[in-house]
Amino acid sequence: CFLSALDEVKPAFGVHEEDLQDKMKGGILKYSSKIDNIIQRVQRDIEQTKKSERFNFSSLLLYGPGGSGKTALASFLALQSKFPFIRMISADEMIGMSEPNKVSHIDNTFRDAYRSPLNILIVDDIEAIIDYVPIGPRFSSVVLRALVTRLKSSPPDGKRLIVMSTTSNYTLLKHLDILNCFNDEIPINNLCNLSDLNNVMQLTSFGSDQVRQSVLSKLRDVFHTDQISIPVKKVLYNIDTCKFGADPIEDLVQLMIESNQRV
Amino acid sequence: CFLSALDEVKPAFGVHEEDLQDKMKGGILKYSSKIDNIIQRVQRDIEQTKKSERFNFSSLLLYGPGGSGKTALASFLALQSKFPFIRMISADEMIGMSEPNKVSHIDNTFRDAYRSPLNILIVDDIEAIIDYVPIGPRFSSVVLRALVTRLKSSPPDGKRLIVMSTTSNYTLLKHLDILNCFNDEIPINNLCNLSDLNNVMQLTSFGSDQVRQSVLSKLRDVFHTDQISIPVKKVLYNIDTCKFGADPIEDLVQLMIESNQRV
Amino acid sequence: CFLSALDEVKPAFGVHEEDLQDKMKGGILKYSSKIDNIIQRVQRDIEQTKKSERFNFSSLLLYGPGGSGKTALASFLALQSKFPFIRMISADEMIGMSEPNKVSHIDNTFRDAYRSPLNILIVDDIEAIIDYVPIGPRFSSVVLRALVTRLKSSPPDGKRLIVMSTTSNYTLLKHLDILNCFNDEIPINNLCNLSDLNNVMQLTSFGSDQVRQSVLSKLRDVFHTDQISIPVKKVLYNIDTCKFGADPIEDLVQLMIESNQRV
Amino acid sequence: CFLSALDEVKPAFGVHEEDLQDKMKGGILKYSSKIDNIIQRVQRDIEQTKKSERFNFSSLLLYGPGGSGKTALASFLALQSKFPFIRMISADEMIGMSEPNKVSHIDNTFRDAYRSPLNILIVDDIEAIIDYVPIGPRFSSVVLRALVTRLKSSPPDGKRLIVMSTTSNYTLLKHLDILNCFNDEIPINNLCNLSDLNNVMQLTSFGSDQVRQSVLSKLRDVFHTDQISIPVKKVLYNIDTCKFGADPIEDLVQLMIESNQRV
Amino acid sequence: CFLSALDEVKPAFGVHEEDLQDKMKGGILKYSSKIDNIIQRVQRDIEQTKKSERFNFSSLLLYGPGGSGKTALASFLALQSKFPFIRMISADEMIGMSEPNKVSHIDNTFRDAYRSPLNILIVDDIEAIIDYVPIGPRFSSVVLRALVTRLKSSPPDGKRLIVMSTTSNYTLLKHLDILNCFNDEIPINNLCNLSDLNNVMQLTSFGSDQVRQSVLSKLRDVFHTDQISIPVKKVLYNIDTCKFGADPIEDLVQLMIESNQRV
Amino acid sequence: CFLSALDEVKPAFGVHEEDLQDKMKGGILKYSSKIDNIIQRVQRDIEQTKKSERFNFSSLLLYGPGGSGKTALASFLALQSKFPFIRMISADEMIGMSEPNKVSHIDNTFRDAYRSPLNILIVDDIEAIIDYVPIGPRFSSVVLRALVTRLKSSPPDGKRLIVMSTTSNYTLLKHLDILNCFNDEIPINNLCNLSDLNNVMQLTSFGSDQVRQSVLSKLRDVFHTDQISIPVKKVLYNIDTCKFGADPIEDLVQLMIESNQRV
Ligand SMILES: Nc1ncnc2c1ncn2[C@@H]1O[C@H](COP(=O)(O)OP(=O)(O)OP(=O)(O)O)[C@@H](O)[C@H]1O
Ligand SMILES: Nc1ncnc2c1ncn2[C@@H]1O[C@H](COP(=O)(O)OP(=O)(O)OP(=O)(O)O)[C@@H](O)[C@H]1O
Ligand SMILES: Nc1ncnc2c1ncn2[C@@H]1O[C@H](COP(=O)(O)OP(=O)(O)OP(=O)(O)O)[C@@H](O)[C@H]1O
Ligand SMILES: Nc1ncnc2c1ncn2[C@@H]1O[C@H](COP(=O)(O)OP(=O)(O)OP(=O)(O)O)[C@@H](O)[C@H]1O
Ligand SMILES: Nc1ncnc2c1ncn2[C@@H]1O[C@H](COP(=O)(O)OP(=O)(O)OP(=O)(O)O)[C@@H](O)[C@H]1O
Ligand SMILES: Nc1ncnc2c1ncn2[C@@H]1O[C@H](COP(=O)(O)OP(=O)(O)OP(=O)(O)O)[C@@H](O)[C@H]1O
Ligand SMILES: [Mg+2]
Ligand SMILES: [Mg+2]
Ligand SMILES: [Mg+2]
Ligand SMILES: [Mg+2]
Ligand SMILES: [Mg+2]
Ligand SMILES: [Mg+2]
Repeated sequence: CFLSALDEVKPAFGVHEEDLQDKMKGGILKYSSKIDNIIQRVQRDIEQTKKSERFNFSSLLLYGPGGSGKTALASFLALQSKFPFIRMISADEMIGMSEPNKVSHIDNTFRDAYRSPLNILIVDDIEAIIDYVPIGPRFSSVVLRALVTRLKSSPPDGKRLIVMSTTSNYTLLKHLDILNCFNDEIPINNLCNLSDLNNVMQLTSFGSDQVRQSVLSKLRDVFHTDQISIPVKKVLYNIDTCKFGADPIEDLVQLMIESNQRV
Repeated sequence: CFLSALDEVKPAFGVHEEDLQDKMKGGILKYSSKIDNIIQRVQRDIEQTKKSERFNFSSLLLYGPGGSGKTALASFLALQSKFPFIRMISADEMIGMSEPNKVSHIDNTFRDAYRSPLNILIVDDIEAIIDYVPIGPRFSSVVLRALVTRLKSSPPDGKRLIVMSTTSNYTLLKHLDILNCFNDEIPINNLCNLSDLNNVMQLTSFGSDQVRQSVLSKLRDVFHTDQISIPVKKVLYNIDTCKFGADPIEDLVQLMIESNQRV
Repeated sequence: CFLSALDEVKPAFGVHEEDLQDKMKGGILKYSSKIDNIIQRVQRDIEQTKKSERFNFSSLLLYGPGGSGKTALASFLALQSKFPFIRMISADEMIGMSEPNKVSHIDNTFRDAYRSPLNILIVDDIEAIIDYVPIGPRFSSVVLRALVTRLKSSPPDGKRLIVMSTTSNYTLLKHLDILNCFNDEIPINNLCNLSDLNNVMQLTSFGSDQVRQSVLSKLRDVFHTDQISIPVKKVLYNIDTCKFGADPIEDLVQLMIESNQRV
Repeated sequence: CFLSALDEVKPAFGVHEEDLQDKMKGGILKYSSKIDNIIQRVQRDIEQTKKSERFNFSSLLLYGPGGSGKTALASFLALQSKFPFIRMISADEMIGMSEPNKVSHIDNTFRDAYRSPLNILIVDDIEAIIDYVPIGPRFSSVVLRALVTRLKSSPPDGKRLIVMSTTSNYTLLKHLDILNCFNDEIPINNLCNLSDLNNVMQLTSFGSDQVRQSVLSKLRDVFHTDQISIPVKKVLYNIDTCKFGADPIEDLVQLMIESNQRV
Repeated sequence: CFLSALDEVKPAFGVHEEDLQDKMKGGILKYSSKIDNIIQRVQRDIEQTKKSERFNFSSLLLYGPGGSGKTALASFLALQSKFPFIRMISADEMIGMSEPNKVSHIDNTFRDAYRSPLNILIVDDIEAIIDYVPIGPRFSSVVLRALVTRLKSSPPDGKRLIVMSTTSNYTLLKHLDILNCFNDEIPINNLCNLSDLNNVMQLTSFGSDQVRQSVLSKLRDVFHTDQISIPVKKVLYNIDTCKFGADPIEDLVQLMIESNQRV
Repeated sequence: CFLSALDEVKPAFGVHEEDLQDKMKGGILKYSSKIDNIIQRVQRDIEQTKKSERFNFSSLLLYGPGGSGKTALASFLALQSKFPFIRMISADEMIGMSEPNKVSHIDNTFRDAYRSPLNILIVDDIEAIIDYVPIGPRFSSVVLRALVTRLKSSPPDGKRLIVMSTTSNYTLLKHLDILNCFNDEIPINNLCNLSDLNNVMQLTSFGSDQVRQSVLSKLRDVFHTDQISIPVKKVLYNIDTCKFGADPIEDLVQLMIESNQRV
């Protein structure tokens, strides 16, 4: 503990690889070419932060519906970058902290992220971090201000930092007038058609071709279209649930119908 | 007391069977096939939590009108599961606590529920726990945030947890945008027709066949339909009350009319 | 003082008969058959609490306009019951207390009401207890929550409790969504016609038959109807006031006109 | 100081005659028969409080526009009553006090008013006492609640108390739903016609008959009516001001026009 | 310091002539006959306070747009009065004070103003003193209440006090319902036509007759009228600014156009 | 450190040149004649503050959309002035400070700016300094009041001060009714046509003439007009980003389309 304090800026200390691995337990399934596009776009931004002569700082926003894979993708891309310092700010760690403590927690994490030559910080679920509740609405404007100020300031010369923030509530950020904190905005989507769904079933080895076709055709019958909108997280959960009921196929179809957000 | 602290994770400590029994004093009367359906659905979810290879966590929501039996059913299903750790978070225990104390009470109960291999936690009456009052509206957003964060995080590897939350205010949870905390949503209903009512009277040995028919036919005369909407809790109370008045049948009919929520 | 502390659960300590007598200084005048109906209905509820095999707890609501006699009737019925423990929670005792102190005052009184085999608790003027002010509106949601939680929980086995709450603002309780705290709701009304008024004058020995007829006929002339709406408390006060003016009959008629709430 | 503390309940201590005299520096001018009516009505209420066999408590409300003479009249009537204990609660004394201090100041004054056999308490300018500000609106609901509770409770047996409250904002008290705190409501009005104004000029020896007629006729020319609405306080001030300008008559006419609230 | 404390009530201590001089650095230019009218009216009020047999207290309100000269005029008239005690309450001195400190600062200054036989107190910019912000709106109701109570109470017998308050937001005071705190209301206006503007240029020795005519005629061309509305403070500033640009006449015309508030 | 404290007012201490240089890392590119106009106008104001015989204080407002260059321009002009004391107040330094600390931070910086004969203070991003959040809206009215009071008061005689404030939310300042704090208001704009964009590309040596023409013509095809609205900051960032993607020209065009705020 005493020694590690001395080593604070070393890669071994900065990277919390184990914890980020946990955030993508369901893997990153390439169920659609859109997944590749997202990955390439973020990688260009990371490349710029690494090598640009003019800018040593970049701030990205990954936004999309709950369960669409924002946290998993941010974690995956951070780990892939091999940057020596990788860390995440999330609401979990701050349960029960007072507002001033939250502010200094956030501020200290940002300061830590100014120490290594190449740093990545994930700010996961901005609305949770600012304690946003839509009724009211309520949120901590103190924490918001601290976060926004940091999202607009560069690290000192010689240090480089890329921040990846996630949100399920893009409209909120717009109303808070903080979209100008981000240099790039990347949308993450739900599975949007039955082909995506088939790919996920296949990639998770669910059922035979016939079973999957049966599921898809039942869904097509109900939806009268191939267009769906189901978060990948929910899809994975449903595929698991149905194994414990009396009639897996019927149950899966039923669960997918209940999960579909398309209207 | 000192010794039991050492034994903290043992089944004998985790289960508060006596207290949960109290929550279902009126028993679980099978006055309709819907009761069985609910029980089977929750049991599938419990089974998944127990055995799934991918997920070690599940979060259910039981919702329905006041007195429809949510707390009793959750208690019944928890006790049936024979899980070694079963506990309930309810507003009663937190009367007069400050917000920070409530947050740590909730957080500590969740942490306890991460210790045994198989854990069940009932979060009873979410709106009471967050001190919700519809005028304002008011509620503790600090407690809400703490609860929601816990409802979204899994226990550590090797531990399994299923959370059963109850609410009488589904719309509130929707407006609070926290329905994404639940993997499954199970509706609990009032008695919905005179046949349900007859079953309850029979199961509680109220009156002769003739007496019951007389009650039902008087109600049918007033309602001009067999459709009703009365919480099982109220039905049981009314059946008891009428025994202490001058004319039980008249009184019961009158009390049921006053209790009917159908419009 | 020291000794009485030891005797805490004994009838002599629990009953505050003197104080409740004060709340019904104007007596309970039977100016209408409705008064008897109210008394019988509450007595049935008290009987149930005393003897029911299933329920050891009941919660009543007496509601009606200001001055209609809610507090007096609740006090009268409590005293009549001869229960060993009778107490009242009212806003008077809590003037200037902080919110946490109010909560523990309420909670402690309820706990006291769990000690004797048969207990009655009057919760007088709920809106005053929760510091309700219609402009805002404002109220103490902390005190409300503490009260509601208690109104929904039974005493331990072997103890029986009936709570009689009063309110002048039924609509408020509806908007607060707390009507489900009550097992029975009993309306208390103003004097509603000139015959009720005549009965009160007679029962308080006001004037000769001729004088009373004169008062009534003057009122009938003004109102063009026998229907009135005047709280019994106001009626009794007016009958007293007019004795100190120059022309009692004219004054009484005038005061009754000003007091009439019918529109 | 030490000795007077011992004499606390004696008339000499309770009466603050000097201070109340200050509140009616402009005297009580009988510029209209309405003034006599008000005085008689309040005197009947005082008489009742003094002698009633049923009631030892009464609570009056004097309401009317700013400067109409509420405080002066309440002070005058209190002093006339020759009650041994007379005191006033007003916002002046409470400047800068915290809310709890205000509550105990009010509560203690009421308790003092329970000590003498006959007590008068003036609660001057209720909206100022509860720190009411129409924008918001804002007010101290804690102070309001303390005041209201006191306004509804009688002194102990053997003591008699009459409370005279004043307000310029009757509508506010209605919206606060506290009019039921008062047993009698007495309206105080502005000067309402030129004859009232002439009486005040005469009673204060302003100008000759001719001068006064000239003022009135100029006003009649401007207003096209004899109906006016000017507070007595403003009238007295204007009569004084005009003496220091170049042309008293013109100035007085001008000042009265600016002060007229009739529309 | 110790000695001066003893001399506290002496003229030399009470008058802060130097500071008030600062508030009228631009002088009092008589650019219109309205300026004289204002001065005479306030002087009559001061005269009344000095000599009235009935009233030892008066409270004035000077209101008008920002920069119209309210503070300068109040300071000028206070200094002219030669009263032994002259002081100003302004928001500057209270930056960063807590609410209770502000209340006692105000209250103490008023108390000081009760000590000398003749006292003047300027309450400068009421909305700033009560921390008014139009969004919300927000303001300190505690400070407001303290101020209002003082504005309604007279000094003790034998002392005389005139208070001159200023505001740029007359409507606010109306909505706060505090206009009844003032015995006289004096409007202060912007320069309202080109002739006023010409007078100010002449009185400040700006340009030759020809230059001024050129400025006025250019403005007349743009405005199509002689009516303008520009605060004297802005006029003086613009006349100064234009001296430092490339083309003074063009610049002045341009600045006046930008400053004109007439619509 | 000890010695420098003694030298506090010397130029070497007051100027934070290094830090202001940081605020204009992208230089001040003269991509349009408007840039020169802005510079000249502010320089006239600085000249007035330096030499005016009447005024020793001036307060400017630079307003315009996010990223349009307000902070860079204010810093550039401050540095150019060669004033001995130059400092900036910005939200960064105040993260996590309590409201009273912010107030004294601001107040102390202003006091420091009263010490040198010639002082410049930049108040950067007023809405950030007052913690403004549009939802609510929320802001610190205490900090606002402190700031506004300072923006309206001159330094003592013999000292001169010019304050340059910046904001992206002119409408907010209008609604807060604080525009009267500023003697001059200077608009800063986005790049507003393709020619401005071409100039920036040229001044930053991006691509050959042909490449730039290709970019412009592609944009013209999409926009159907030469009118654009893109902040200079964004333009510079995009020019950098595109260098790290597969197809710089396509990427730049795409990025500019996403950045264009014209509608
Ligand atoms: N292509 C993919 N992209 C993202 N996640 C994927 C993908 N394929 C599988 N997953 C899995 O799906 C889950 C996505 O959940 P995740 O928590 O990242 O969603 P989220 O958008 O952050 O949800 P929330 O809005 O609730 O925070 C993860 O378990 C992840 O491993
Ligand atoms: N089939 C049933 N399902 C649920 N409860 C039943 C059933 N049959 C009888 N009961 C009894 O009915 C009562 C239901 O009350 P319970 O408190 O569980 O309702 P609730 O929905 O939780 O009410 P609330 O909304 O007030 O919390 C219990 O006493 C329970 O024992
Ligand atoms: N039949 C009656 N019912 C109730 N009160 C009666 C009756 N006859 C006479 N009274 C007297 O009338 C008065 C009723 O006043 P009480 O304070 O009980 O009314 P309340 O409804 O509680 O008023 P509030 O809404 O102000 O609390 C009491 O003094 C009571 O003794
Ligand atoms: N007939 C009268 N009634 C009341 N006051 C009178 C009368 N004749 C003269 N006065 C004088 O008029 C003044 C009335 O002022 P007072 O402060 O009592 O009015 P108010 O209604 O209490 O005003 P506010 O609403 O501001 O409290 C007093 O100085 C009083 O002496
Ligand atoms: N006739 C005049 N009346 C008032 N002020 C004048 C006059 N002639 C010149 N001045 C000068 O004009 C300036 C008026 O500014 P002042 O601060 O008094 O305005 P204000 O109305 O108080 O503004 P604010 O609303 O911002 O407080 C002062 O410098 C004053 O010396
Ligand atoms: N002509 C110019 N004017 C201003 N800035 C320029 C100009 N040319 C290049 N720049 C550069 O553009 C950037 C402008 O960013 P700056 O932070 O000043 O904008 P801003 O308007 O203050 O943004 P924000 O509203 O986010 O505070 C700076 O890096 C600056 O060096
Ligand atoms: Mg996430
Ligand atoms: Mg329940
Ligand atoms: Mg009552
Ligand atoms: Mg008064
Ligand atoms: Mg001013
Ligand atoms: Mg900026």
